[in-house]
Amino acid sequence: MTTGVRRRMGVEQRREQLIAVALDLFGHRPPDTVSVDDIATAAGISRPLVYHYFPCKQSLYEAALRHAADELTARLAEPCEGPPGGRLSRVLRRFFDFVEAHGPGFAALLRGGPAMAGTGPSCAMIDGVRQAAYGHLLTHLGVREPSPRLELLLRSWISLAESTALLWLDGRHVPRAELERQLVHAFAALFAVSAAYDEGTAAVLVRVLGDEPVDGPFVRFTARSGVPGPARLPAGAAQPSAVVIG
Amino acid sequence: MTTGVRRRMGVEQRREQLIAVALDLFGHRPPDTVSVDDIATAAGISRPLVYHYFPCKQSLYEAALRHAADELTARLAEPCEGPPGGRLSRVLRRFFDFVEAHGPGFAALLRGGPAMAGTGPSCAMIDGVRQAAYGHLLTHLGVREPSPRLELLLRSWISLAESTALLWLDGRHVPRAELERQLVHAFAALFAVSAAYDEGTAAVLVRVLGDEPVDGPFVRFTARSGVPGPARLPAGAAQPSAVVIG
Repeated sequence: MTTGVRRRMGVEQRREQLIAVALDLFGHRPPDTVSVDDIATAAGISRPLVYHYFPCKQSLYEAALRHAADELTARLAEPCEGPPGGRLSRVLRRFFDFVEAHGPGFAALLRGGPAMAGTGPSCAMIDGVRQAAYGHLLTHLGVREPSPRLELLLRSWISLAESTALLWLDGRHVPRAELERQLVHAFAALFAVSAAYDEGTAAVLVRVLGDEPVDGPFVRFTARSGVPGPARLPAGAAQPSAVVIG
Repeated sequence: MTTGVRRRMGVEQRREQLIAVALDLFGHRPPDTVSVDDIATAAGISRPLVYHYFPCKQSLYEAALRHAADELTARLAEPCEGPPGGRLSRVLRRFFDFVEAHGPGFAALLRGGPAMAGTGPSCAMIDGVRQAAYGHLLTHLGVREPSPRLELLLRSWISLAESTALLWLDGRHVPRAELERQLVHAFAALFAVSAAYDEGTAAVLVRVLGDEPVDGPFVRFTARSGVPGPARLPAGAAQPSAVVIG
């Protein structure tokens, strides 16, 4: 029966199955604890047959990584429609969906675990996803040639999102929906900090806020605390360079 | 002459010299482009003699990394005296001093370059420095048992400081002093975002602001932009749970 199934599967189909099995295992256990035997068992085939499709463990891991990177990149795409804060919220929800599904694999990859990271291809793939995220942010901000300060702001926020997800995975003590919202707020807050130092960044923020409802997540930071704050300014009315704690 | 110097150097002294030479080279070029020959030449000794003190390239690299990690950890220490914003500013200045001095070595280490990172010892050492930074922050905040939300806030800010330094090194397009100030502001801004979700974190922030002058870097976010903002609240007067962009 197994043999019959095996015969009917084409090479690409079998490779895709093994990648899916590997990613499923990496979603539950750190990749460096998952052996080729584990993958073979979960796929219902023999260990030598795994090597028929992937010449070494590393090549299977890299193929799985490529698949995951492509999936994450696809999840980052968001139509340029509607208020910017809502767009960012939706992207973050899909990002955390991915993080939740791939848990230990995601952590091992970004932490530089011995199994997958530190190798040239994995670094390049991670950088590719980061570059895609950066490109999407620029598109949504309507910026073609970012200043060094704006670039640094966006890339450092992307890094903050990564590290927040990593820290969340370690125990999952804080509800992820809360962290998704906080990252939207953090985006606006860091933007405002940077805008205080850079007129170009401030101009972009003014324009973005012009597309944001006054009760949107970019503006409505006081909602949960019940503190009446001066946050309900007409969108884009003032230079958005003040981050105020009060 | 060289031989005479060599004879007079003890084992520990020679090891320290080789570590210093390696770190100096790593401060100018990526470690994976620095060979044992380069280190031997810069130290004025033969390649075999380097191997006399360090059995393999990796052991020399790891010793250099340990030395750098200890140096950075020492730079993070700051007396618990004076306004908190000023303390954080001084620590960040010393952190960027370190980053500037170790440039490519710092980048290779954190980016997971093939020469040093991805190995167990280097990951453990980096985590050790992060843990020291986290411990210092808790001490300065006067917190012994942080909530999961406060821990996540502090650890994610540490990660933001790391990634900001890494991004800065890539071209150094933004003055580092500006980034040091922005990271102080970002600390307060992210603190305020998190405080909106967590009463315990809000209470810590209120207490910290009570030790901060109203024109301190934790409060004075509008100073550079010239925007008259409501930032000059009496320290600790209100629940600091609003991050306002206006």
